[in-house]
Amino acid sequence: MVWNTNLRWRLPVTCLLLQVALVVLFGVFVRYDSDADPHWLDTKEQENSTSDMENEFYYRYPSFQDVHVMIFVGFGFLMTFLQRYGYSSVGFNFLLAAFGIQWALLMQGWFHSYYQGYIHVGVENLINADFCVGSVCVAFGAVLGKVSPVQLLIMTLFQVTLFSVNEYILLSLLEVKDAGGSMTIHTFGAYFGLTVTWILYRPSLHQSKERQSAVYHSDLFAMIGTLFLWMYWPSFNSAVSNHGDAQHRAAINTYCSLAACVLTSVALSSALHKKGKLDMVHIQNATLAGGVAVGTAAEMMLMPYGSLIVGFICGIVSTLGFVYLTPFLEARLRIQDTCGIHNLHGMPGIIGAIVGAVTASCANADVYGVKGLALAFGFDGFKTNWNASMQGKFQAAGLFVSLAMALVGGIIVGIILKLPFWGQPADENCFEDAVYWEMPEEPKSTVLHPEDSTLKPSEP
Amino acid sequence: MVWNTNLRWRLPVTCLLLQVALVVLFGVFVRYDSDADPHWLDTKEQENSTSDMENEFYYRYPSFQDVHVMIFVGFGFLMTFLQRYGYSSVGFNFLLAAFGIQWALLMQGWFHSYYQGYIHVGVENLINADFCVGSVCVAFGAVLGKVSPVQLLIMTLFQVTLFSVNEYILLSLLEVKDAGGSMTIHTFGAYFGLTVTWILYRPSLHQSKERQSAVYHSDLFAMIGTLFLWMYWPSFNSAVSNHGDAQHRAAINTYCSLAACVLTSVALSSALHKKGKLDMVHIQNATLAGGVAVGTAAEMMLMPYGSLIVGFICGIVSTLGFVYLTPFLEARLRIQDTCGIHNLHGMPGIIGAIVGAVTASCANADVYGVKGLALAFGFDGFKTNWNASMQGKFQAAGLFVSLAMALVGGIIVGIILKLPFWGQPADENCFEDAVYWEMPEEPKSTVLHPEDSTLKPSEP
Amino acid sequence: MVWNTNLRWRLPVTCLLLQVALVVLFGVFVRYDSDADPHWLDTKEQENSTSDMENEFYYRYPSFQDVHVMIFVGFGFLMTFLQRYGYSSVGFNFLLAAFGIQWALLMQGWFHSYYQGYIHVGVENLINADFCVGSVCVAFGAVLGKVSPVQLLIMTLFQVTLFSVNEYILLSLLEVKDAGGSMTIHTFGAYFGLTVTWILYRPSLHQSKERQSAVYHSDLFAMIGTLFLWMYWPSFNSAVSNHGDAQHRAAINTYCSLAACVLTSVALSSALHKKGKLDMVHIQNATLAGGVAVGTAAEMMLMPYGSLIVGFICGIVSTLGFVYLTPFLEARLRIQDTCGIHNLHGMPGIIGAIVGAVTASCANADVYGVKGLALAFGFDGFKTNWNASMQGKFQAAGLFVSLAMALVGGIIVGIILKLPFWGQPADENCFEDAVYWEMPEEPKSTVLHPEDSTLKPSEP
Repeated sequence: MVWNTNLRWRLPVTCLLLQVALVVLFGVFVRYDSDADPHWLDTKEQENSTSDMENEFYYRYPSFQDVHVMIFVGFGFLMTFLQRYGYSSVGFNFLLAAFGIQWALLMQGWFHSYYQGYIHVGVENLINADFCVGSVCVAFGAVLGKVSPVQLLIMTLFQVTLFSVNEYILLSLLEVKDAGGSMTIHTFGAYFGLTVTWILYRPSLHQSKERQSAVYHSDLFAMIGTLFLWMYWPSFNSAVSNHGDAQHRAAINTYCSLAACVLTSVALSSALHKKGKLDMVHIQNATLAGGVAVGTAAEMMLMPYGSLIVGFICGIVSTLGFVYLTPFLEARLRIQDTCGIHNLHGMPGIIGAIVGAVTASCANADVYGVKGLALAFGFDGFKTNWNASMQGKFQAAGLFVSLAMALVGGIIVGIILKLPFWGQPADENCFEDAVYWEMPEEPKSTVLHPEDSTLKPSEP
Repeated sequence: MVWNTNLRWRLPVTCLLLQVALVVLFGVFVRYDSDADPHWLDTKEQENSTSDMENEFYYRYPSFQDVHVMIFVGFGFLMTFLQRYGYSSVGFNFLLAAFGIQWALLMQGWFHSYYQGYIHVGVENLINADFCVGSVCVAFGAVLGKVSPVQLLIMTLFQVTLFSVNEYILLSLLEVKDAGGSMTIHTFGAYFGLTVTWILYRPSLHQSKERQSAVYHSDLFAMIGTLFLWMYWPSFNSAVSNHGDAQHRAAINTYCSLAACVLTSVALSSALHKKGKLDMVHIQNATLAGGVAVGTAAEMMLMPYGSLIVGFICGIVSTLGFVYLTPFLEARLRIQDTCGIHNLHGMPGIIGAIVGAVTASCANADVYGVKGLALAFGFDGFKTNWNASMQGKFQAAGLFVSLAMALVGGIIVGIILKLPFWGQPADENCFEDAVYWEMPEEPKSTVLHPEDSTLKPSEP
Repeated sequence: MVWNTNLRWRLPVTCLLLQVALVVLFGVFVRYDSDADPHWLDTKEQENSTSDMENEFYYRYPSFQDVHVMIFVGFGFLMTFLQRYGYSSVGFNFLLAAFGIQWALLMQGWFHSYYQGYIHVGVENLINADFCVGSVCVAFGAVLGKVSPVQLLIMTLFQVTLFSVNEYILLSLLEVKDAGGSMTIHTFGAYFGLTVTWILYRPSLHQSKERQSAVYHSDLFAMIGTLFLWMYWPSFNSAVSNHGDAQHRAAINTYCSLAACVLTSVALSSALHKKGKLDMVHIQNATLAGGVAVGTAAEMMLMPYGSLIVGFICGIVSTLGFVYLTPFLEARLRIQDTCGIHNLHGMPGIIGAIVGAVTASCANADVYGVKGLALAFGFDGFKTNWNASMQGKFQAAGLFVSLAMALVGGIIVGIILKLPFWGQPADENCFEDAVYWEMPEEPKSTVLHPEDSTLKPSEP
């Protein structure tokens, strides 16, 4: 099938319309929260706080910046592994994330920070907006190389909306704990993206097969993404946890889980190759599964060894997924998952939800202290008569809601994206930057005879 | 014209002389400030502070590190887009910044931290030194590829000096607010650099034209620079703001402005290409203009929607500049602006100054609170009888002073750099690393037949 | 000599055995420390602390993340300069570090955080684990390209163990101060690695000579590593210093030393080339020596000019080392030091130890204040009757202990690694990713005629 990929009017109009709408909505709805407002001086006085350090900014900002790097450099570069899709991987990720964070500030704001007629934003909202967009970046991984930037903007518009609804159901209605977003971000994002790519199935995608692989340098660029995701994941899982021990514990658990995950990913990658060689795809992706899978439980009393076990299992499951499941999904279920997000976010997300539910069920006042337990799970106010096992059940319910939202939402959005006028590339032009980007000429002489220009400089 | 580009004695002597001078001046003048001195224990007691957290280090250090990354990785890699100038982009930027921060610690120290015969340095001085060097990195973008490292060191020496004088006039004499440096850093840096490159005009630069463009991988390296600048810009604009709400607000405003800027940059980039394709130059540069343009007003009550509007406008202005203005400046005004800094720092800097002046003029006690207003603009002490409109006028005056300093300074420094013995490259050797760098041999076999070496490994 | 490099069973079994052992040991020994435990709410009350900010997390976490980036991106990418060893540089560094941090948490925990039958981990343990692994990354630089991942895991196992013993002797028995690890990390790591590579001497390594150099893009990847190391080194040297002024001062001193080091490295690099050209190897490595050499003294009253002098000297020494000493060591002493770690970590580490000893000797109550002196060197408790000169002597003793441990340990570990069944590459296959990695096919057409695919996209 051949579509018109000239986006000259469609992309600019989409961007400008969305941005104008955002400006108007921000003008009507968005204000600073009390910690970012000049009246904070008075707030501080009322709260008898003597230190500027009590501003939420200082509790969250370093974590926010780490999360920010994960979204833009982490996800952006992780996807540059394709030999001819680096511009699009980084560039489209940049575009959709820049749009997504604005829209997420509004959507999440209406659900969680809306009072007195305004959305009040502070640093925690910025983190949550990045989180929400993280879920879109996950889904982007499934359709990478096969969609136009216009489609991505539309997908972002809908996915952020659905994410916010799902998050509201989980966090506010079901009172689920999910600080690192195993359910809200990873499970939802992955199964949403997989459903979309299933709807967008391209029977002749094999025509682009020769570009659906890496070259030497593209794999190194991808490792930049991998490492920044891996290193900053402790910040991701701890960024919105309660002050103090919860944030501290979430970072430790994530650090442990990720470390264990590297070793089992390497082990499996080598064991599954007939000559024992490692595969860059596994190192780039499966090593991160441990971070996904402690997303829910990281702030709980998972214990360091518990985290290691989770990472241990996920490195294995994820690598096995890349070797056996992804080809199966493509061949049998017609799910073309470019980055293998099912292995990195899908299965580990589900594992994370289960680990979270179990860990929550096991919570008790011995381990947490009486006050600690109340604080960790909000067992006060209207939840006074809850107990840990109830919390565990609601956690499990959260998983099913997320999966249902992802599947239903993914089908609807997939059908919208299937419409033929969004500028998607033809099957033989997938995974190719040249469709949407002005490409640099590769000066033959420089590539073939680099020493020519090296030797030329005239030095008198 | 042909110059001697062998720097064997000139570069080492320049570096060593400068560094020896710095050692001596540091020995005579530089001491730790009270928060970095072991007597801080006593200071703390005197101030009745019970918490180590009150040390300025904890308020500023995370922001400092983000700014540091922007200067060295951000600016350094942003300029690697040229196909044969990656070593020089990153390496010379590294060199000039490493010299510049030391010299800036002294110059800014004499103006702002000098008492009891010593310059007292702490983390805020480190940030300000990085800021000052940021202005040199901006100017470097205009002359990139056409100057020798000796010229860059000399330019840095003078520009840091002029920057500090200008900054002193603005911040201390005119009492201008410019936390993110729209005027002091970007406007000054850009017009200084443009004036220098105008003086250094090379009529035969077209002889190097084939190297004044990107190749595929060099554009990806440049995106590393772009993204780290983009992500950490909220830290840049908030790094030296007042503790608490001001720092918090500056980060939020910058985040918003940058996000909006991405969408309008993409929109214009596509709209201005006859096939609607995106141009990497715009994505790498114009997307950052929103950060420049909220530099002055970020800590003020610009409001989130105000920030979006600023970003919206700057993405458009900047992209238009790349498409229409840069070629015009080169053809008509003989300004050869390698990186298009006029579009990324020049015009957005002026916009930022204007936005700042207008936002300051509109300040009032309703919006800021009485105490908040006094704190935000220093309307106490000798400024007690100032009002917002007066502040606005002084802000505007600051812009003109910056422009004047940049033009006059740029002419003088340009003339100095035009002297024929600094080792500058010939017109046909511009944008070429081989002039100043020992180049690796590109083993023909590896480039052409990489599979050869891949297949070779002997496995018994 | 030819070994079997098929790691299909050896690597997976090694990884899985180690990871299972770690899980068990963590289960038996590792618990959260009081700041990461939910009972912290009670701890806080007992300590009359009103602010969550007093949690150690907020004092150390931003520094921890910077150190984390240095270990994984900094060291990982620094070593990608080799043309055909990028996967292994980044990937094996990732593997050994992920294993090493877990093992270090245990080893260091038993020595320093073991009480009531458990190791109690918090953010400071995470930093120290990263530090310990930093020492392994240093040693990795010496054997880079010549060992298998199995050898690296075994080396890590032993080196982390020895590191922890050495660190315990220095910090706990000799009461040495070494916040940035000039002795414990750099000197120990470098001479350990050099001894190992000396034992593993390969007489026919010249057969791989054509791959033991950079290509254009690999040098740019390496600069990513260099810059992240350089930028975050102030965090490295200050990460575990005392709260407040010590941490603050350590960052300032490191910043100064590194800046000076860049200028003298550039000066020497140019002066030692017959045409005055710069060598990327020096810019990538020697510029960092200043950070190594203030590791011990950074938190002391070294003064900013003292730091500049240290950086000044190290830039010179390190560059001279690359030009003259490394070839000499290889030719005469049979020490094949792939990355030149002797120049970057060995000599600067010794210089750092000496600078630390001298600076400590000169400490007095005038400079530090009475309380400051006691706090800085722990001159209270059983060290009450110590004085500065005694501290200096113990510092010097620490250097000799570190060197002795490195040499003895390196010989033993080298002999173990020399056993012929670890899957090491043949001499003619060193510095080659294809031995251990599944390599991407380089599609001839794309490399040679990139414009083909550029022109293809069908646009109706």
